[in-house]
Amino acid sequence: MMRKIEDSPLYGIANPKSIAIFGASNRYTAMGTGILTSILQMGYEGRIYPVHPSETTVLGHTAYQSVLDLPETPDLAIMVLPTRIVPDVMEECGKKGIKYAIVVSGGFKETGRDGAVLEDRLKQTADKYGIRFLGPNCIGAVNTHLKLNATFMPCEHPPGFIGMASQSGSFITQMFAYLGRYGIGFSNGFSVGNEANIDIVDCMEYLAQCPNTKVISLYIESIRRGREFIDTARKIAPHKPIVAYYAGGTEAGRRAGLSHTGALAGEDRVYEGVFRQSGVIRAHSIEELFDFCWCLGTCDLPAGNRVIVQTHSGGPGAVAADACARSGLELPALSESTRQKLSEYLPQTASMNNPVDLTFTKNNMDFFVEIPRILMAEPNADALLMYLMLPRRNITRFIESTGLSTEAARAETEKFIAEQSRQLAEAMLASEKPWVGFSYYSGESPFIRGLYDAGAPVLPGPNRAARAIGAMVEYKRLREKLNASA
Amino acid sequence: MMRKIEDSPLYGIANPKSIAIFGASNRYTAMGTGILTSILQMGYEGRIYPVHPSETTVLGHTAYQSVLDLPETPDLAIMVLPTRIVPDVMEECGKKGIKYAIVVSGGFKETGRDGAVLEDRLKQTADKYGIRFLGPNCIGAVNTHLKLNATFMPCEHPPGFIGMASQSGSFITQMFAYLGRYGIGFSNGFSVGNEANIDIVDCMEYLAQCPNTKVISLYIESIRRGREFIDTARKIAPHKPIVAYYAGGTEAGRRAGLSHTGALAGEDRVYEGVFRQSGVIRAHSIEELFDFCWCLGTCDLPAGNRVIVQTHSGGPGAVAADACARSGLELPALSESTRQKLSEYLPQTASMNNPVDLTFTKNNMDFFVEIPRILMAEPNADALLMYLMLPRRNITRFIESTGLSTEAARAETEKFIAEQSRQLAEAMLASEKPWVGFSYYSGESPFIRGLYDAGAPVLPGPNRAARAIGAMVEYKRLREKLNASA
Repeated sequence: MMRKIEDSPLYGIANPKSIAIFGASNRYTAMGTGILTSILQMGYEGRIYPVHPSETTVLGHTAYQSVLDLPETPDLAIMVLPTRIVPDVMEECGKKGIKYAIVVSGGFKETGRDGAVLEDRLKQTADKYGIRFLGPNCIGAVNTHLKLNATFMPCEHPPGFIGMASQSGSFITQMFAYLGRYGIGFSNGFSVGNEANIDIVDCMEYLAQCPNTKVISLYIESIRRGREFIDTARKIAPHKPIVAYYAGGTEAGRRAGLSHTGALAGEDRVYEGVFRQSGVIRAHSIEELFDFCWCLGTCDLPAGNRVIVQTHSGGPGAVAADACARSGLELPALSESTRQKLSEYLPQTASMNNPVDLTFTKNNMDFFVEIPRILMAEPNADALLMYLMLPRRNITRFIESTGLSTEAARAETEKFIAEQSRQLAEAMLASEKPWVGFSYYSGESPFIRGLYDAGAPVLPGPNRAARAIGAMVEYKRLREKLNASA
Repeated sequence: MMRKIEDSPLYGIANPKSIAIFGASNRYTAMGTGILTSILQMGYEGRIYPVHPSETTVLGHTAYQSVLDLPETPDLAIMVLPTRIVPDVMEECGKKGIKYAIVVSGGFKETGRDGAVLEDRLKQTADKYGIRFLGPNCIGAVNTHLKLNATFMPCEHPPGFIGMASQSGSFITQMFAYLGRYGIGFSNGFSVGNEANIDIVDCMEYLAQCPNTKVISLYIESIRRGREFIDTARKIAPHKPIVAYYAGGTEAGRRAGLSHTGALAGEDRVYEGVFRQSGVIRAHSIEELFDFCWCLGTCDLPAGNRVIVQTHSGGPGAVAADACARSGLELPALSESTRQKLSEYLPQTASMNNPVDLTFTKNNMDFFVEIPRILMAEPNADALLMYLMLPRRNITRFIESTGLSTEAARAETEKFIAEQSRQLAEAMLASEKPWVGFSYYSGESPFIRGLYDAGAPVLPGPNRAARAIGAMVEYKRLREKLNASA
């Protein structure tokens, strides 16, 4: 494995000080124009050189007829060009001294024999000049911390901690809004396309060293370098979690992958074995992939699998208990000392079993801060799963009853909820045991929105939350095993 | 089974022309006040009689010291009173001639021996006067079509088609916002509480006859009348689907249920057998429960399990194929005639395998209407699963390129998207084969919002969509089996 992050070809791809872009024009419908628009919209601060055969400016930037005319050697070339001219342009980039490229253009190996020949020429040209490149047939790359979005979709989420390498570009670009909804996001995203030069193993090595990346996320249709994948992952996993979704787990999924990227996927049990050997956590849906990343990136690891469920509603508590059991988690009984400490806070209707069902509390903050603090001190428990709901309108009704006008009561409600969110998020994120929320509400609830914005993990529903805690337990065990065998 | 819906005790609960409410006051924090507030807020048009020992008006309505003082015999009594006085109030209601009641008050059997004694007295009193009642220890009931929300949580979703009976009140009230997010909702919701008089079987019978209910949804911690449950469900299932979530599937879930409602749940395989015998579709999470209801309530049933996946992105297509296979669905190859018809619409980059991966289309409406219409005519397929994404900002960029100002382009974008949503929803809902969408976007995307609002089933993610199609296939088979054995 490389020693310095700068040694990685992805460093050059993700951190350019200057970019030559081929295929952007003033025609808005062109894919290349879309990419340049995204770069400009996100506020990239490096120098940009559009290369275009006829335009003199492109989206307000001076354009150059040939890369050879540029006033400097840019760090990165992005190509969104007709397939047949890509190898020639790569040749010119080589002559100019460019060392890194992203080839977005498709029409290569994935289309058959002629495309494969062209792809070989592209590879050979790059090799001749020592150029490392992402693609072809990819959707680009994003480094949110550099405000660099070299894809055709707008990325509006703030810098995040999930570093992703994906064999489907869609799971980079089409996740921007999805992740943003939960207040999480990519640190870096790499669409690897046909992996003609840089592959998913290279991406893992880079993301392992990337200081902005807390957890590595992989979408896999096929692993091309099996041995290297395992060796690399085993070195990374003890330090940084890797989570993967494998699309070829079924015959139908395999066939779809083949048709999509020409990937020759293997049987499910083969991949299952590869992941286990590598210390890679396997997710079974895209949602789960990001759920796992979310929790692994925000929580300390649990010492074991014993979870306390805290709720104020019996049904959601029962469902959460059921979900925990299905995810291999145990619900320990509370110790006598915890029960004693709790009794101060709980009404008679409450249950001190696990789930701890408060039914209601005299003071709201008891529910959100004081009681979980007692539960977190329980020596028999390794994590807390908490049901979250704070119905705005009922609070407004309550505040109105103090004699305030409806308008004033609404304003007070917003303030109250914001303060509850803030304190709860702070406690969750400071906790030394994983403290995960679940809710059937989402960002439309200001309480949940506040938690998302603060970075606290609140998963949609108990099943997803329990699975994510299960993944943390699994990662803890895998890491111990890898460390023991290292 | 009853012959007329009016014979059901739930008819009296759900369709009162007048209500006496006990426990509402001008103190906003009282639960009873919360329920009366909800009733008033939703716009219930019947007559309301608060009964209160000292207030002369309650929330603007004339209050009465005793139910015996009311100017008429109300159809329904709602009691939110201290436990110990509930049986006496029931006695007075009997004397007044009231025939139906909802007892929200808790503190009965679920709290132990003394509570059980009180519950017995309550039952005997009701029996003496022939009163049928919901509860005690329940959260109330809602009939959205009558604008009657007798729970303490505001219900703001429009009338829906899901009829629910729940052993946890939370899965009525705390789902209002959840369902509303997707544009679906309850027709009726009954929180059955301790089931002292009316139980979940009674609710099923009512919902089976209810013309506003297309699908019956059950949250179960324990079935008290097993034989009747099976017999009733078997009679209903051939005509109306029943979907159930069972919380006691694991030891932890069972213990939680016991602590919640005192339910003595059975082993998972026992319940699995009961559901199978009854023709009840089993959901494995609350989200799934409503996903299944959504699709069963909006789609015609599939003839079999053969699904076409339509996508314009390879990754989401591969994930959907994988999800279908895991849900017991097959992805048939397209017949020659379908391929021929498709070829007119598809670019060279497209795949005519299954998933049908369009990559892009010249005309957007081809993707949303013309192409699915061709796929729906495929004799080898029983259903269509379609990936949905229409990125607003890329469309705005495109429209701007025609020379419009940004503001005008945004307005055009909204119009364009609304029209696409409308046409697609119309086609989906008119289809004779199930046509289910999936998306990683949600209501924050105006395209998806438009589909939700029109009532089209668009599920969050391919796994949930595939599971829901699987549930429709299962229901079709169960129904055939029940009809054959009838």
